[in-house]
Amino acid sequence: MLVQKYKDMLSGKSVIRQLSEFATARGKEIGYENVFDYSLGNPSVPVPQEFTDEMIHMLTNKETNELHGYSPSLGITSVREAIAASLEKRLGLPYRKEHIFMASGAAGALAHAFRLVTEPGDEIVTFAPYFPEYGPYVNLTGAVLKVVPPDTQAFQIRFDKLEEMLTKEVKAVLINTPNNPSGIVYSKETLQKLADLLRRKSALYGHTIYLISDEPYREIVFEGVDAPCVSRFYEDTIMCYSFSKSLSIPGERIGYVAVNPNCKDAETMVNMCAQISRGIGHNCPPSIIQLAVAKVLDKTADLGVYETNMKILYKELVDLGFTCVKPGGTFYIFPKALEEDAKAFCNKALQYDLVLVPGDTFGAPGYFRMAYCIDTEKVERSLHALRRFVSETYR
Amino acid sequence: MLVQKYKDMLSGKSVIRQLSEFATARGKEIGYENVFDYSLGNPSVPVPQEFTDEMIHMLTNKETNELHGYSPSLGITSVREAIAASLEKRLGLPYRKEHIFMASGAAGALAHAFRLVTEPGDEIVTFAPYFPEYGPYVNLTGAVLKVVPPDTQAFQIRFDKLEEMLTKEVKAVLINTPNNPSGIVYSKETLQKLADLLRRKSALYGHTIYLISDEPYREIVFEGVDAPCVSRFYEDTIMCYSFSKSLSIPGERIGYVAVNPNCKDAETMVNMCAQISRGIGHNCPPSIIQLAVAKVLDKTADLGVYETNMKILYKELVDLGFTCVKPGGTFYIFPKALEEDAKAFCNKALQYDLVLVPGDTFGAPGYFRMAYCIDTEKVERSLHALRRFVSETYR
Repeated sequence: MLVQKYKDMLSGKSVIRQLSEFATARGKEIGYENVFDYSLGNPSVPVPQEFTDEMIHMLTNKETNELHGYSPSLGITSVREAIAASLEKRLGLPYRKEHIFMASGAAGALAHAFRLVTEPGDEIVTFAPYFPEYGPYVNLTGAVLKVVPPDTQAFQIRFDKLEEMLTKEVKAVLINTPNNPSGIVYSKETLQKLADLLRRKSALYGHTIYLISDEPYREIVFEGVDAPCVSRFYEDTIMCYSFSKSLSIPGERIGYVAVNPNCKDAETMVNMCAQISRGIGHNCPPSIIQLAVAKVLDKTADLGVYETNMKILYKELVDLGFTCVKPGGTFYIFPKALEEDAKAFCNKALQYDLVLVPGDTFGAPGYFRMAYCIDTEKVERSLHALRRFVSETYR
Repeated sequence: MLVQKYKDMLSGKSVIRQLSEFATARGKEIGYENVFDYSLGNPSVPVPQEFTDEMIHMLTNKETNELHGYSPSLGITSVREAIAASLEKRLGLPYRKEHIFMASGAAGALAHAFRLVTEPGDEIVTFAPYFPEYGPYVNLTGAVLKVVPPDTQAFQIRFDKLEEMLTKEVKAVLINTPNNPSGIVYSKETLQKLADLLRRKSALYGHTIYLISDEPYREIVFEGVDAPCVSRFYEDTIMCYSFSKSLSIPGERIGYVAVNPNCKDAETMVNMCAQISRGIGHNCPPSIIQLAVAKVLDKTADLGVYETNMKILYKELVDLGFTCVKPGGTFYIFPKALEEDAKAFCNKALQYDLVLVPGDTFGAPGYFRMAYCIDTEKVERSLHALRRFVSETYR
């Protein structure tokens, strides 16, 4: 007998995937260059040349068993040291390799973070709008994901609602800043208030409420925006990082868990990650990729194109009368739809070959997401379609 | 509060790891070349040049976003097709890409296989001697691993014991042939008898008992040995494969699940694997490694050295009076210790800088494992130490 819960999941098809499949199919009819596909958050800028050069250098010069051999279960020591040194320099916290666990991308990192601090039945609280995979990621561990409704004014945190939902079943709060899908960055005030509340509630309940900080977009922050380091606000922070976006290598599946050096159990938690791995079939990220990223920790792909695209889209959307919080980073924007039902809105947009994702998917009905990790030239060409869509449908 | 079950696991240190650490420490004292380290199953032969060439070729010529982009959650389509075609040709079963799920090594593949067919409380039966990680791999899913005691005559299967243990709680039987740690290969008779028994019991209980076949050593079979394809004997076989040993790339974490094309739910099971992945933070193996192995599916590293080493050791062990089943493949041999307590035996061997692993770890007390994936020259030099150890300790 096959396990029913996984079988049942087969019928629930991801809206984003359906839209992306539509875009591909439509591309075959009219040429993909004519489909304004804002559905998928796939990095579009080239990988830094230094990464490629480092890979070729190692393949050419290193002894193969050394290069492709087993990684220790916490990650290659020299790689963990390099990451700790880089984080210490950049974030000003005393990271050491003992705080770093190498994980296969953010999904791998989160899978460990959730299991570190929750038993089945425990709750994890997150904030709408949120990355929809958080649902299965959390719920399939046996813990329960609870979602605080969105602050649609600024996509910061509704503390009134959070306070209500922070019951003693809650063992962790999960945040994502810069945020997918809203593109906003949590302010200092938000993070300070969140830390204060978590400390107060932790003391009240007599157990630590951990802050799990999912930070794959940390390097994509726009000019003039202050993106405060989450770990500096709260000692019991478990940072989950991925190089997918900063280096444009999402297929190579590399990231890490960095437990705040000021968390009293930090080293134990990192060691526990290796035990969790045994239960979920996790393996350290590929050896060669670990070694290569360690050499380019201070590099990123040329991320400027995302800011260029954001500016073009934000201006156009505002000009067209959309209500829209200006993104502080990422490659997403999350405007209010022009009718209450964002699904209907996005469906109508398809007639103009504009592929937008309804906010319902992200726990924020009435809004829609545009992933603008596409060529600027295409963003510019899409404006005409956007204008036509709006004027012909809503004027 | 941190989750206790993972915290508790920190105190239980792996015997193999302790021995390996001893070998490293001792190596610092007397030179690692003088430590006869038979503890770890790390492939020692170089990676095939074709793999390296293919990696460099892609890094030099492919567009980076294509090369390092997201893999679909079942694996890259062209890679799955290539693997299916190769399996069809070699095994004579009608594999298609719909039967293949790319996994991050055998551990990743097994993590999916176990979750496909067991709920918490269900049982999985395996056979001593067995790979000790099967314990946490299975038990941390919530299912329970049961171990059939060893057939110490030939390390085949004790069917009398298996029949007793095949209760209706058992949802899968887990085998590993060629076997770690015994090095033996299951015969046609064993596999036929196993298939017959599983069919009979499946009918009796009204549910399929799946056969999970862990096959990382499939390509390491010695001359004259018939290593029958497990999937040809039983339609409900879930094959778990890893390229770690065949290509000497254990750090790159690549393998796959191949569901028998004759299993009636094969395609559903492969699709379910992608759902299971969402719950365990699994990600497809790295894109570039998927693409590279697809080009060298019919190549292996030069595995002949393992057979050379086996022959030298087997002859010497038999000459010294050890009881020993001759390995049919892998890079392990599993002789009977010269005293009842194999731990004491292995401890005494350490005085001769011989690092052997007691069979207790593998569910077969009284035996010990030698992993001879080391240079032949070192195997030859170790014989003198082995002779001295035996003559000075047991004569």
